Amino acid sequence: MAILAIDFGGTRTRAAWFSSSLDLLARDETPTRAHEPQESVIARVIETARRVVPPGETPLAIGICAPGPQAYTGLILHAPTLPGWHSVPLARLMGDAFNAPAYMENDANLGALAEYRYGAAQGANPAIYLTVSTSIGGGAILYGELFTGWRGLAIEPGHLKFPLPDGQIVSLERLASGTAIGRAARDRLASSNEPSALRSARETDGKTVGQAAMQGDALALSVVREAGRWLGLGLVNIVHLFNPQVIVIGGSVAQLGDLILDPARQVIAENVTDPAFNDPDLLRVAQLGDDVCLIGAALHARSKMV
Amino acid sequence: MAILAIDFGGTRTRAAWFSSSLDLLARDETPTRAHEPQESVIARVIETARRVVPPGETPLAIGICAPGPQAYTGLILHAPTLPGWHSVPLARLMGDAFNAPAYMENDANLGALAEYRYGAAQGANPAIYLTVSTSIGGGAILYGELFTGWRGLAIEPGHLKFPLPDGQIVSLERLASGTAIGRAARDRLASSNEPSALRSARETDGKTVGQAAMQGDALALSVVREAGRWLGLGLVNIVHLFNPQVIVIGGSVAQLGDLILDPARQVIAENVTDPAFNDPDLLRVAQLGDDVCLIGAALHARSKMV
Repeated sequence: MAILAIDFGGTRTRAAWFSSSLDLLARDETPTRAHEPQESVIARVIETARRVVPPGETPLAIGICAPGPQAYTGLILHAPTLPGWHSVPLARLMGDAFNAPAYMENDANLGALAEYRYGAAQGANPAIYLTVSTSIGGGAILYGELFTGWRGLAIEPGHLKFPLPDGQIVSLERLASGTAIGRAARDRLASSNEPSALRSARETDGKTVGQAAMQGDALALSVVREAGRWLGLGLVNIVHLFNPQVIVIGGSVAQLGDLILDPARQVIAENVTDPAFNDPDLLRVAQLGDDVCLIGAALHARSKMV
Repeated sequence: MAILAIDFGGTRTRAAWFSSSLDLLARDETPTRAHEPQESVIARVIETARRVVPPGETPLAIGICAPGPQAYTGLILHAPTLPGWHSVPLARLMGDAFNAPAYMENDANLGALAEYRYGAAQGANPAIYLTVSTSIGGGAILYGELFTGWRGLAIEPGHLKFPLPDGQIVSLERLASGTAIGRAARDRLASSNEPSALRSARETDGKTVGQAAMQGDALALSVVREAGRWLGLGLVNIVHLFNPQVIVIGGSVAQLGDLILDPARQVIAENVTDPAFNDPDLLRVAQLGDDVCLIGAALHARSKMV
C-alpha cells in the first residue's frame, strides 16, 4: 500500500508515489497555469497525479499540499497565488478521482513537518520553519506535532507587522520576501544613480537581484542585506515568543544563504534579551529542496492512517 | 494534605495554604524589601509562609512563583526587580525550610496557568496571558499545558521589538508598560505646554498617569492610548503566530480597561490579515486579581504530585 502526495502550488504542480515507509517510488510535475479555467487546472492536477500511480493501484491515502489559510478543511478558501479560487474543495475532488481518503494541509505547515522529520530540524522542539520566496509562510512543530492554533491559522510570519519611519505599518512579507527584494531594488535604481549590473538587466525581480548579489553587485547586496535585517527582526520576535531550538529557513530566498542570513543573525544577536535565546546553531537552511511539500504531504497523510 | 503557595515578587511576598482541591485556607503577605540583605529577605519569605501553615502540618508540596527567566530551575538567576540576586536557589531553600518538594515557575507562566484554569481563559486553546505592569511578561497554555519553549524562555511579549522612526529598535516593554506610560507622560510634560492635571502632581508615574486618564485628563489619555496602540501592535504579532482563542491581559495596567484596550483592539482589527484571527471575544481582562500567582503556584505544585 502506498501514499499519493500532491503539491498544488501557484506555479508548479507536483505529484509523487511513496511507499508506506515513505520511499519515493515515482514523481512527476507540471506547470500549474493558475490563470487557466479552474476545471482545466484541476484536470491537469489529476492527470499529473495519475502519471505517478502504478496501473491498477489505489493509494492508501492522499496527502495534498496547498497554499492559503485553513487548508486542513480540504478547501482552497483563497490564496494570493490562485486569484479567483474561492472555497474550491480540492481534497474531495482528489479523493473522488483516486478513490481514497484525502488530507490537505497548508504548504508551509507541511514544509515544517518534512524538515522536522527528515531535514534540518530533526528532533528539535520547538522547531520553526519559514519559507521565504514570493511570499513568506511558516509552520511550527511543537512536541513533535504540527501546531496550527485555534482555527488553523497559526504561524504566519509573513504577517508580522512593523512600523516604518513614516508611520505606515507593514508586514514582514513587504520587507523581506523575494517580491520585496525585487521592489526595493527597482526603487533604488529609480531613485539613485548608483551603478549596478541590474541597470542592464531585462527584468529586476527577486531572482535577478539575488543573482546580482551573489556576483557581488553592491546595490543588489545592499538590498539583500536590508531584507536580511528585516527578516532578522521578524525572527527576534519569533524567538522571544517560541524560544525555538531550531529555525529552518527555506524557499527560494534561502538559497542566498549567508548573504541574507548573516544580517538576520546579526540583528538577532543584537536584539535578544538573553543570549540563551540564540544558540549558535539556531538558524539553519532547509535541506529538502523542491520536494519538501511532497514529503510533508505524504507524512501528513500517513499520520492520519494510524 | 495541603499545598503551600509562595508568590515571591519584587514588591510583595505572598503566601497561601491551599487544600488539595485548591480551596484557599489561609493567606498572608508582606513587603519584600528587595533592597535589604538577601538573607533577611529570604528569612522574611519563610516567616510569611510559616504564618499560613497550620501548626504541626507539613505541606504535600510547595509551589513558588518567582520573577525572571528559567525559574523552573528553582534558581532566581537574575530578575530586573531583584538587583543583586544571582543564581539564588530559592526552591531548595523553601523545600528545606518546610520539608517538602518545592516547584518554582515564572510569575507570568503561573498567571497564564491560573487564568486558564479558573479565570478569563478557561478552556481556551491556545490561551495567551500578558501581564502589563512595571514590566511586561507573558505565558501560554497550549493544549491545556504550560508552553515554555526549548530552554523555558518562551512567551516574552515584553521583548517583542519594534523600530522607532529614528531607527532605534526598542522593546514593547519600553512602549507599553506602566513604566513606559510614566516616562512618556513626563516627556510630554517637559516638551510641551499642554495643560494637564499631572503638572500639579507630586510624581508622574504609570499609576498617576492612569488615574489622570481615568479622570479624563487629555494628555494622560493621549499617552495611555499611544501605549494601547503599541500593545495592540505587539498583540497583532502574537495573533499571527499563535492564532490564540483568547488573550488575557492582567497586571496593573489592565485596570485601565477599555482606555488602553480599545486602542489595542483597533490596531488588531486594522492589522490582522484575516478577520478569522480576531474573534470579538479575543481580548479579555484578567479575572483573578492579586492572588493570580498564588493560585498558579498551587496549580503547578499540584500538577507535579500526580
